[in-house]
This record gives sequence, C-alpha cells and structure tokens, in this order.
Amino acid sequence: MSYAPDSTVDLDRFTASLEASARIGPGRPGGLSRLTLSDADREMRDLFVGWCRDAGLAVTVDTCGNIFARREGTDPDEPPVLVGSHLDTQINGGRFDGIAGVLAGLEVVRTLNDLGHTTRRPLEIVNWTNEEGARFSPPMVASGCFIGAYEVDWVHGLTDDDGLRFGDELARIGYLGDTPCAPRPIDAYFELHIEQGPILDAEGCEMGVVIGGYPSHGMRVRFDGRTAHTGPTPMDQRQNALAAGARWLTMADDIGWAYAAQDGKASAARLVAWPNKAGILSDHAEAVCDVRHPDTSTARVMAERLRRAAFEAAARCGCRCTVEDTWHWGGDIFDAGLVASIRQHAERMGVTHRDIQSQAGHDAYFLARHCPTAMIFTPCRDGITHNNEEFCTPDSFRAGTNVLLHAVVERADRA
Amino acid sequence: MSYAPDSTVDLDRFTASLEASARIGPGRPGGLSRLTLSDADREMRDLFVGWCRDAGLAVTVDTCGNIFARREGTDPDEPPVLVGSHLDTQINGGRFDGIAGVLAGLEVVRTLNDLGHTTRRPLEIVNWTNEEGARFSPPMVASGCFIGAYEVDWVHGLTDDDGLRFGDELARIGYLGDTPCAPRPIDAYFELHIEQGPILDAEGCEMGVVIGGYPSHGMRVRFDGRTAHTGPTPMDQRQNALAAGARWLTMADDIGWAYAAQDGKASAARLVAWPNKAGILSDHAEAVCDVRHPDTSTARVMAERLRRAAFEAAARCGCRCTVEDTWHWGGDIFDAGLVASIRQHAERMGVTHRDIQSQAGHDAYFLARHCPTAMIFTPCRDGITHNNEEFCTPDSFRAGTNVLLHAVVERADRA
Repeated sequence: MSYAPDSTVDLDRFTASLEASARIGPGRPGGLSRLTLSDADREMRDLFVGWCRDAGLAVTVDTCGNIFARREGTDPDEPPVLVGSHLDTQINGGRFDGIAGVLAGLEVVRTLNDLGHTTRRPLEIVNWTNEEGARFSPPMVASGCFIGAYEVDWVHGLTDDDGLRFGDELARIGYLGDTPCAPRPIDAYFELHIEQGPILDAEGCEMGVVIGGYPSHGMRVRFDGRTAHTGPTPMDQRQNALAAGARWLTMADDIGWAYAAQDGKASAARLVAWPNKAGILSDHAEAVCDVRHPDTSTARVMAERLRRAAFEAAARCGCRCTVEDTWHWGGDIFDAGLVASIRQHAERMGVTHRDIQSQAGHDAYFLARHCPTAMIFTPCRDGITHNNEEFCTPDSFRAGTNVLLHAVVERADRA
Repeated sequence: MSYAPDSTVDLDRFTASLEASARIGPGRPGGLSRLTLSDADREMRDLFVGWCRDAGLAVTVDTCGNIFARREGTDPDEPPVLVGSHLDTQINGGRFDGIAGVLAGLEVVRTLNDLGHTTRRPLEIVNWTNEEGARFSPPMVASGCFIGAYEVDWVHGLTDDDGLRFGDELARIGYLGDTPCAPRPIDAYFELHIEQGPILDAEGCEMGVVIGGYPSHGMRVRFDGRTAHTGPTPMDQRQNALAAGARWLTMADDIGWAYAAQDGKASAARLVAWPNKAGILSDHAEAVCDVRHPDTSTARVMAERLRRAAFEAAARCGCRCTVEDTWHWGGDIFDAGLVASIRQHAERMGVTHRDIQSQAGHDAYFLARHCPTAMIFTPCRDGITHNNEEFCTPDSFRAGTNVLLHAVVERADRA
C-alpha cells in the first residue's frame, strides 16, 4: 500500500484520539474546561507529545510553549509544511474546538506512516499555546509571537485573574521550552477547524473552504472613577466606573443590533470592576468588547463607533477612559493557491463543499501574515461552540480530514 | 466630681482610641480596608474587648458575632440602653464610618466611670457584625438577626466571593459566641455616626439630629443566558447574560438621573458574570442596584421602575431574569421622644445643629423596628465616605459625643 489519490485517513483512530482528549479537563456535561497552562493542559500536552513520539516525530517546545512535532522530509533543508491548531479550551468549552485541528494533523502523519510515504518537505504538527485567551487575554499570543507580532517577554508577563504570570505558569507545567519563539521559514500552514457557526450544518454541506476571516476589531478599555457611598452621593457628584463600563457594554450591544441584518455583531464580553460591592460606587473597571462585519469598511466604522462609545460612556459617568489595547484581524488573508488546492481536492473526491468566511479568530490569521495559509472547516451541530453542547459526529470530520491529507501532501511534495 | 449637665467626655481619649483603630487593617493611604470577619476585624475586636474589660464591662458575644459590653445599672432588672455601631469597614473604607459610633459609646462609659455615676438602667455598648455588607451581602444582617428579621442559620450560610461561609469565618476568628442572636428587651438604642454626606460640613453645622432615613430600595437580580462564541453567533441568537446585566445597570443609572434634581439617586453597585471572558458570551450574571429618594412614594415608584428594568434588560438580551433578593429601609422611623431629647441637649449646650435625614443604611434602621431609636450625625469633610479620603477632625466629634453622653444618661436615668 502506498500513497495514492484515493488514500484515506483512519477515521476510527482519529475519533479515538478525540475521545481520549475529551476525558482530560472535564467541564460541564459533555464539554471541556481545559484552560491554557492549567494542570489539565499539561496532561493533554503530555498525551499529545507521547502520541507524536510514538509516531516517530521529533518534538520541540518553544519559549511560548508552542509544541512542534516534526516528521522529516526527503529534502530536510526545505522549510516545513505546518499543520495544527490548539489543545486549550474555553472555561465552558467543547471537545472539538481547536483539538480536532491538532489531532487531524497527527492523523495525517499517522496515515503517511502507515502508507510509508515520506514527503519532500518536512511536516510539522503544531499545538499553539493560549489560542482561546480565556485565561490570559488577548487570545492567540503564542502564534502572534511566532510570527513576530509580539515579544516573548510581553507574552510571559501576561497575568490571569489570579495575578499568575503566563511565563511562570508555563514553567510550572513544564512547557517553557528553550527553542526561541520567533519567526522562521515555513512553507505553508494548514488548519482544520470546526466551523463554529451554523452554515455547513444547516446546508448539509460536508466541508467549508475558508477564503478568509470576518473583519473583526476588539478593544480593552479601562474606566477610572472614584469610590463613594451609594447613599448620600448626589448623582451629579458620582464617578462610578462600573456604571461607565456597563454603559459601554450596552452601547456595544446596540451597535451590534444596528448591523445585525447584514450579519454584523458586537459583543459585550467582559466587565470587571473594583470594589464592585453593594454599598459603594466603583473606583475602576476594565471591559472588553468587539465588533465583526463581513464587509471590511463597515467593520472599521463599527470599531470607531465602539471606541467613541467608550469615551461617551465615561463622560456620562464622570470617569476617565483609557483604551488599553486594540486588536483586529480578518479579511481575505488566505493564500489563493492553497484555497484552490483544497477546493480542487474536495471536487475530485466528490465532497460537498462551499466557500466560507471564518467568524472566529484563529492562529491561522497570524500565520497568514508569515506564510501561505489556508483553513478547512468541518460542520458542527447548530453552530454551537464555546459551550459544553458543542457537538460533532465522527463522520462530520471525514471530508475535512481527507481533503487535508491530500492538500498537505500536494503542497509538501511539490517540486 | 460627679455627673452634671456640663459634664464632658474626654475628646483626647476618644481621639486616641480612633487612632489606635486606624492602625488596624490599613487600606489605601489614610483609609481602612477592614472587611468583616477578616484577621484585621479580629484584631480590632480583640482591642475593643480589651478596652471594654479595662472599663469594667461584662462582654458577651452572640451567635452572629455581635459584641455587647455591659455596664450594670442600679436597677439591673431594667432593659439596657444600647449604644453602638460597627467596627468593620468597606474595602476602600475610611477610619470613622461606624467606628466613631462604637468608640463614642465606649467614651460615654469611660466618662461615667471617671465621674463615678451609675445609671439606673444598664448601659450596653454594641459592635454589630457586617454592617457594611462589603464582604457578605446584604449589609446589616447581624442587627437584622438581633431584632428577628433574619434567621441565624441564614446569616451563617451567607458566602463571600471566595465561597467562604459567614458562620465558618466567624468561628475562625473566634467570635462565634454562644449567646443566641435573637430579640430581647432593649430600652433604647443610640447610634452616633459620621454624616456620610456634605450637608453639615457645607453649612458649618456641628451636629445633625437624625429624624429618619431616606427611603431606600435595593435588589439583587440574576440573569441567565447561554455561553456562545462572540464571533459566529448572530445577534438574534445571543443570550448574553453579561449584556443583560450591563443594560440593567445602565437603566438604573438613567433612573437615578431622572430624579436627580429632587435628590433621588440610583446606584449601579455590582455586576459579576460568568465566564466574563473575551471570546465568549456569558452564561449568567448577578447584579445589585438600589434607588433612594427623600419622598417615600417616589422611592417606591423608582423601585418598581428598577424592578421592571431588570426584566426589560433580560428580555432585550434573550435572558431569564430572577429577582433573588430585595430590601428597603428608611422613612421617619426614629423615636420622637429620643429625637426631641437630642435636640434639647444640643440647644442647651449651645451646639449648632439641624434636623437631617440619613442617606445611608444603618443598623439603627433595624433597631428602630424593635425599640425607641435615634441617631446623631457628626460632620465629615465634603461628605466623602466609603473612600480612603474620608476625613473628620477630632473637634468635629465634640458636639456629637457630648450630646450623646447627656441623651444616654437622661434616658437611662429616667424614672
């Protein structure tokens, strides 16, 4: 048996790996709560590294904890083809988000091992640290650092809600590697991911060819006021930072509704105030909101409305406003050649497919700034994600994983 | 030297006691952060109990941790006259709020000791547990339990943000007493307190005769939604509990402004959501708001607007709304006889004074349901409170503490 256009991955083996992952870091029933750099994250990483070594791969860990498992090519001097995603989850996360992409990369390698096929270029499977940003904000810092968008020291200095540092937690779980997390030549990056939206499931479509990402803008804003008693302090003397934060979140929600018919969205995602107690007005608050729209220009307008809303909310409440961080991603960022290759393999294999935009952020967005990049989406039930009810059948991965196999081999073997 | 109409308290001794208290549980510069049932609370209680014993008082602690320090009367069968307030503070609290009232009670007793005067009725100084509600919500639970408004088991079961139980923390600091916290005959209750508002300071008035409390209504509301990804989930499919909470707080703030010209207020005091993270819509949120207005009927209307606003906010965000707790206090609740006595002593002593309504909640509100009750207010700079900048000069307590002395003795000695 050798590699051929009709070769297929072992879907049972892939499913068994997913199921093993689903037992590490259980959350609400059926879901996972495997926050990055937690004990559960370590356990999953250990399992993954063991699988990679069993598959004959050379594992390295970089200074952001990104794990690279390398299968040598016949031409080891060529830059590798990278395939992966992330093994961390949201606090009320599902069993598939990210995980399916890492394990699909592993399954591609296992399949090529079975077939005895060595690609011309090396293959590397990657697990990116902290894709979710659920514990350390912002998300995707480790892939961002890998392509040079962030400094390692800055990533290490991020703190969670308990004040624990990213760098310390990385060392604690034993995944502070010594390979510098810095840009290096990559031939191409592939990421398979569940859609995290309802389109493929609703249309009964087996696979999405991701042509780009929804233009998305987010920001973290701090409001500074002054503590005072909730009783005697007249309204016109209050500087309630919690009220300012609440106003901003409300205005964000309003912005989302204003663009909802064109599939625009705005999210009131996070609000933390201090002291945040009955009986006292809050001194300061920090909030995170984001906006998304399929049209780049509209997304930009929404982002500016959101930014101005923060200052308006602060002014209404007599507080000061500081935009502490902003981020944006999306647009038609994926490589036309890789996208065409994925589409052609789907056609050839008789897989039902459609072009689709990603609405969530992915490590692939950073990688696309560094090397040719593409994504494959697989269906998930009702589009539910970041929730323990996230659900995919084993069969829902059949089309995506097999197209991934052939697209990766085509890329890695090209002259 | 014996007790006479011109007897005075020792203001230096009172000030020294306040200063000793100001060293226990330091917060921001000049302030205190002495949360109830903390180690600092224990240290302050120990100091207070030592002072009481030095003054010859018999100390008992009840099952809610309330401390009663009794000075026997010539007629020990008569119910006692109770004088006190609270020694706990807000997380960003001041050095005077509550503390001045407990130590003024102690100073009255110390003065009577110096003068060798035994009142007919017993005197008891009281420190109420958890007046502030800053750690365990709602506030004033221990005075509420003392007058029969709450059950001890319910109080013991309250939890702080770390999940620690009130009853366990009481035992931990050694102040779970064995005297049942339950109603018993009290002849009268006096509470001296800083005004926590700007009126006395602005008018240069030495003392406030508190005639009642601003009618105040508060409520704690829970919003239930559903976690989902902030990206793909369309606006019309979101059930973001954090957005619902933020909308309610914003509507509360609007209600406050609508009545601000008549000195009405509404406070967006607390909002806690879960997971409350970038990248995910929140599953549930809990929020606390309150409204206050000098007119009872208007306050009731504001409270109903606030309640309906919670359901409106939930409906806008596709969430469920549960009003988990409500409370109200205020009105003309203080005893006309005691109020007149306080006013007359002020007149007699040539102290500038004015009638005033309390805008904050006090343990005296609960006691007023149980026995004749009155309060004395002393000025505080700019009315700033629940803030480390809370400030009172030693001299600002001269009028209030001396009027307290004479009003207490008159009440305790009456035939």
